[in-house]
Amino acid sequence: MATLNSNYLKLKAGYLFPEIARRVKVFTEANPEATARLIRCGIGDVTEPLPGAVREAMHAAVDEMGTREGFHGYGPEQGYEFLRTAIAQHDYRDRGLEIADDEIFISDGSKCDGGAILDILGDENKIAVMDPVYPVYVDTNVMAGHTGEAREDGSYEGISYLECTAENGFVPAIPEEKFDVIYLCFPNNPTGAVASREQLTAWVAYAREHGSILLYDAAYEAYISDPAVPHSIYEIPGARECAIEFRSFSKNGGFTGTRCAFTVVPKSVMALSSTGESRPLHPLWHRRFTTKFNGVSYVTQRGAAALYSKQGKAEVAALISGYMGNAAILREAVAASGLKVYGGVNAPYIWVKAADGVTSWEIFDRMLSEANIVVTPGSGFGRAGEGYFRISAFNSREKALEAAARIKSMVW
Amino acid sequence: MATLNSNYLKLKAGYLFPEIARRVKVFTEANPEATARLIRCGIGDVTEPLPGAVREAMHAAVDEMGTREGFHGYGPEQGYEFLRTAIAQHDYRDRGLEIADDEIFISDGSKCDGGAILDILGDENKIAVMDPVYPVYVDTNVMAGHTGEAREDGSYEGISYLECTAENGFVPAIPEEKFDVIYLCFPNNPTGAVASREQLTAWVAYAREHGSILLYDAAYEAYISDPAVPHSIYEIPGARECAIEFRSFSKNGGFTGTRCAFTVVPKSVMALSSTGESRPLHPLWHRRFTTKFNGVSYVTQRGAAALYSKQGKAEVAALISGYMGNAAILREAVAASGLKVYGGVNAPYIWVKAADGVTSWEIFDRMLSEANIVVTPGSGFGRAGEGYFRISAFNSREKALEAAARIKSMVW
Repeated sequence: MATLNSNYLKLKAGYLFPEIARRVKVFTEANPEATARLIRCGIGDVTEPLPGAVREAMHAAVDEMGTREGFHGYGPEQGYEFLRTAIAQHDYRDRGLEIADDEIFISDGSKCDGGAILDILGDENKIAVMDPVYPVYVDTNVMAGHTGEAREDGSYEGISYLECTAENGFVPAIPEEKFDVIYLCFPNNPTGAVASREQLTAWVAYAREHGSILLYDAAYEAYISDPAVPHSIYEIPGARECAIEFRSFSKNGGFTGTRCAFTVVPKSVMALSSTGESRPLHPLWHRRFTTKFNGVSYVTQRGAAALYSKQGKAEVAALISGYMGNAAILREAVAASGLKVYGGVNAPYIWVKAADGVTSWEIFDRMLSEANIVVTPGSGFGRAGEGYFRISAFNSREKALEAAARIKSMVW
Repeated sequence: MATLNSNYLKLKAGYLFPEIARRVKVFTEANPEATARLIRCGIGDVTEPLPGAVREAMHAAVDEMGTREGFHGYGPEQGYEFLRTAIAQHDYRDRGLEIADDEIFISDGSKCDGGAILDILGDENKIAVMDPVYPVYVDTNVMAGHTGEAREDGSYEGISYLECTAENGFVPAIPEEKFDVIYLCFPNNPTGAVASREQLTAWVAYAREHGSILLYDAAYEAYISDPAVPHSIYEIPGARECAIEFRSFSKNGGFTGTRCAFTVVPKSVMALSSTGESRPLHPLWHRRFTTKFNGVSYVTQRGAAALYSKQGKAEVAALISGYMGNAAILREAVAASGLKVYGGVNAPYIWVKAADGVTSWEIFDRMLSEANIVVTPGSGFGRAGEGYFRISAFNSREKALEAAARIKSMVW
């Protein structure tokens, strides 16, 4: 009889967001009058309309597809030249970072890329993740058979967790131990923390010393407001030798439902083959794209390219500014209530410590029932997130203000 | 040092289509005057404009995305209800086939799904593919470590090849040996062959006897003209217990550049866990979607749903009829030249046997240089394809007629 991938059976039942959805459903079914009052500050999904520049470009591309001359069938799996060039130029070369067009791979999402990258890496690698962490990094490693069973607290044997705490500013210390693959995410989801140039320099030095690969998730780079904070890992000399960077149009251009992202794989990132040779990962990633993917929709890629136009850049800036205005309002409200608050300055996420002894799901349930606000329980992101919760600033200004008022009126 | 997935290093250099592109480039650079004359009958890419119904739906969806009320962020990873229901109803239930909405998973391509399906299957499965075969089935198994090294003839140790020859009508005989996972593709790419109800019934009986899983690629089902030929594996009683079906909007709706497809995973398809329990694959596929994918663009899904409208169905019928008209013209031209010709009746591919002793790449080079027609060498699809070539009917009528005239004027 055919067998299944039994690693899937190790996965804990609730991927975080489905469990939140379940609890919200139970609550609103029991309290139908509260449904209209509900404010969702849980999942990190944008709320504001898709920029006009993007919509215009998509309309034009749809019209093109209606003519034989303008019709686009299969495109290059790695993305159209017009988009790869726009990204490499605007996001990297204009900032003095040496990234070639063909080191940019266009995909339909960073979540997809974050899972797919494991395809080209060996199964023997020692993996480290930040804790708390975006659950997808861990779950994709479980699926790939890189872990043992789940422990009581939700962590997995075989993965190392680098603690991010208030004490270390939610940026993990450089480990004594040698890891082969380290997932770093800055600005961080869920804590909203950023790493300084010095901290990233230490990580790159660590990676180069050990021949490790840094999987650098910069999906929220557009939210950085502090001019001293690096937007890309490639701002650190030597990173081209050891880092793969993930970026997305989801959170800057509002593409969560439109689906476009990219991964940067410099040709100088190497790894060991089973015969002990050091080889570049770039051709493997290229081969993965051509064999297991067929490119992002032409219409979508035209929309993404429009984010680099003058109008597109202005609209992105306005979106970011709106969401970060919400973040300031929510941050202030939480601080006024006496709780300890982090993040929300260089990231659209506010990370809050509940009162001592209160668990993340307890505070989730309280905020749901008392304030009708949906947050994300910190423990859903890992053991070190226990006792915290995440508030997302992705909302209309009106709802952010209403949420802030309700937070202030709660008895903490 | 970090390791890479050394299975990738077993892959033969040229994925078929890049090698074709390379030879065409060499030829046109040496013969610039021939460039304008080139007729591409190689890659299976559609050429005609995207249907009006699709474009209208996409325009409307882009406009919706411009309003706060109509904005769509993250959608359900498995696809929107409106599209899953339309598919299950029109493609299955209206034809008397019992498929539930939540057994349909919307993706961005059958190529992606064909690779992704291996994620949820065990590594111990004995794999069989048809020969000749769509290279992606084989290459994704190589990448997943299910094979040994490549042999001289391009085949891989550890995979079994079921020969499809003129003698068996390009439908492989039921094997004596037990395989756990069998890839079947009907209408077939590249041979254009279809399997009869009796042949598919025998395959389903085989799979049920051995607990095998049939991976049934029906991307070309819209091209079936013979009313006796099944459109779906689920027309065969018992297939719900053993078959996963792949379908696409690429070849019926012209979505090769718009990217939307679906996979059907009935809840009754089971496989063995490492502890010997029989478990359904449906929850694993669902988990893969929620963890490693973020759904297809809302705008694209609205476009795909429009293919099921009255106008959309009429436009699909017109596209198919146009391409199949080309197929008839090309088929006739090849037959008139005295070569043995197959396919092109229930599929947009014509499969031609070159003169005895002539290899596929020899005939490819001859057709390129003498007739300036790009075909696909049969040997690129596997050992059993040697001596054959594939002509695609995806072209404008004008070019199909011109290609036919040139084929007739060649000295064979």
